[in-house]
Amino acid sequence: MQPDFDRDIAVTPVGDGVFARDLDQRWSVGGGLNGGYLLAVVGDACRRAVPGKPHVLTASAHYLGAGTAGPAEVHTRLVRDGRSLATVAADLTQDGAPRLAVLATVGDLAALPDEVELEPGPPDMPPPEQCFGRDQAPPDFRDVAPMTQQFDMRFDPDCVGWAVGAPSGRGLMQGWFRLEGGREPDPHSLLMVVDALPPATFDLGRPGWAPTIELTAHVRAMPAPGWLRVRHRAGHVAGGMFEEDCEVWDSRGRLVAQSRQLARLPR
Amino acid sequence: MQPDFDRDIAVTPVGDGVFARDLDQRWSVGGGLNGGYLLAVVGDACRRAVPGKPHVLTASAHYLGAGTAGPAEVHTRLVRDGRSLATVAADLTQDGAPRLAVLATVGDLAALPDEVELEPGPPDMPPPEQCFGRDQAPPDFRDVAPMTQQFDMRFDPDCVGWAVGAPSGRGLMQGWFRLEGGREPDPHSLLMVVDALPPATFDLGRPGWAPTIELTAHVRAMPAPGWLRVRHRAGHVAGGMFEEDCEVWDSRGRLVAQSRQLARLPR
Repeated sequence: MQPDFDRDIAVTPVGDGVFARDLDQRWSVGGGLNGGYLLAVVGDACRRAVPGKPHVLTASAHYLGAGTAGPAEVHTRLVRDGRSLATVAADLTQDGAPRLAVLATVGDLAALPDEVELEPGPPDMPPPEQCFGRDQAPPDFRDVAPMTQQFDMRFDPDCVGWAVGAPSGRGLMQGWFRLEGGREPDPHSLLMVVDALPPATFDLGRPGWAPTIELTAHVRAMPAPGWLRVRHRAGHVAGGMFEEDCEVWDSRGRLVAQSRQLARLPR
Repeated sequence: MQPDFDRDIAVTPVGDGVFARDLDQRWSVGGGLNGGYLLAVVGDACRRAVPGKPHVLTASAHYLGAGTAGPAEVHTRLVRDGRSLATVAADLTQDGAPRLAVLATVGDLAALPDEVELEPGPPDMPPPEQCFGRDQAPPDFRDVAPMTQQFDMRFDPDCVGWAVGAPSGRGLMQGWFRLEGGREPDPHSLLMVVDALPPATFDLGRPGWAPTIELTAHVRAMPAPGWLRVRHRAGHVAGGMFEEDCEVWDSRGRLVAQSRQLARLPR
């Protein structure tokens, strides 16, 4: 089946504030579904729950259990509806068990002023055609991470030592990103993009699944068409946990999304 | 009345998952109550709601309206109770109107391993006696920010230009912090500490109230007794909003808490 992000995240209203979605195996990685994909599904429910406020501006997600392919429900509750912003509480459940609890504040990115006062700008990277794509990944890569077939990701050659057993120890991962099928970035897909890459702990010599405890994403601007640049950095690795910060820039060099997560270190 | 943080945040159970607290005028700043104080009150309810998991490890708060001195209720709902972590949803309301919606994951910091793998460490600052305290603040400071009487804060002299009309433009604010009354830091007070300083936008030449939209705090370790070092940095100032990151180190130099908030720029 052709990649189609909108098809894969779209929820259907099935009751008062309740939405349904068959979670898709195409977004699996390791044993579960990608956390960014789950957040985008919940985000779709949150924006549909509040007419006139089409974008998730900030979403805080607490991860409670691995999502699996199959039916899911998103139960939303409007906490407050204000003039420019509204806040929605949403739980994603499967078979009645909570997988993800989210608080999202929705609004209209198009209504924000355009001015940029202080923004460090995107990292320097070689152009996509000089970066490492999935064609250069090990043969079993597609089987372990089917979700990587949904997008085109080009890793900065300076940050791929981890893939050949030589992590840099910086906890840094960056590259170019775009959805397959010619789908341009938008505020909804950014909720997935901030959690699409392998954990930055791979670059600390800690390959393996790093279960997210909490992830908050801020969507800061409408992204322009074209490639995105994505950077992940692991920081404060201590007490069996680490924080990972992600920044996403669009083709104009504008910061369009950022996220921070608290995750458990891979064992 | 003597400063007493524990008295000021303690909630009383008044129903099934419902807790009451008279919010205290002592924690006011400008026209409302400090957001960190409100988060600490909600944190107290969340940890009481789940026996055996005494600490908030991560809390995501969406700010819906200014808290005011007077009666408040915290309505909690246990979303999931796991082996080592539990997640609680909590709304702080006053007169039935929501002020703060929170998702908190609680656990036991004492059960985490001690190892530190990657931690940049605290900033260099002159010792507290060479830093600027509230005694050196303008005379109306106490009236504008009564909450500053609840703690002893010593600003790094390199970061106080904003106080004399000469902001550095870096969006940086740092200093030493401890509660008054000999009260040592603990995981509960850290929820307040991460939002106790003036907005880092003061250092961008933007004095004024910067309303928080969302703030997530991670409490990473049990703090040692003594002075805390606190650093705030404003980043990605664009579209009428900015993100502010805070880090808190204890007297051993261990990172004990961090937070990130999305806030509106002062007008």
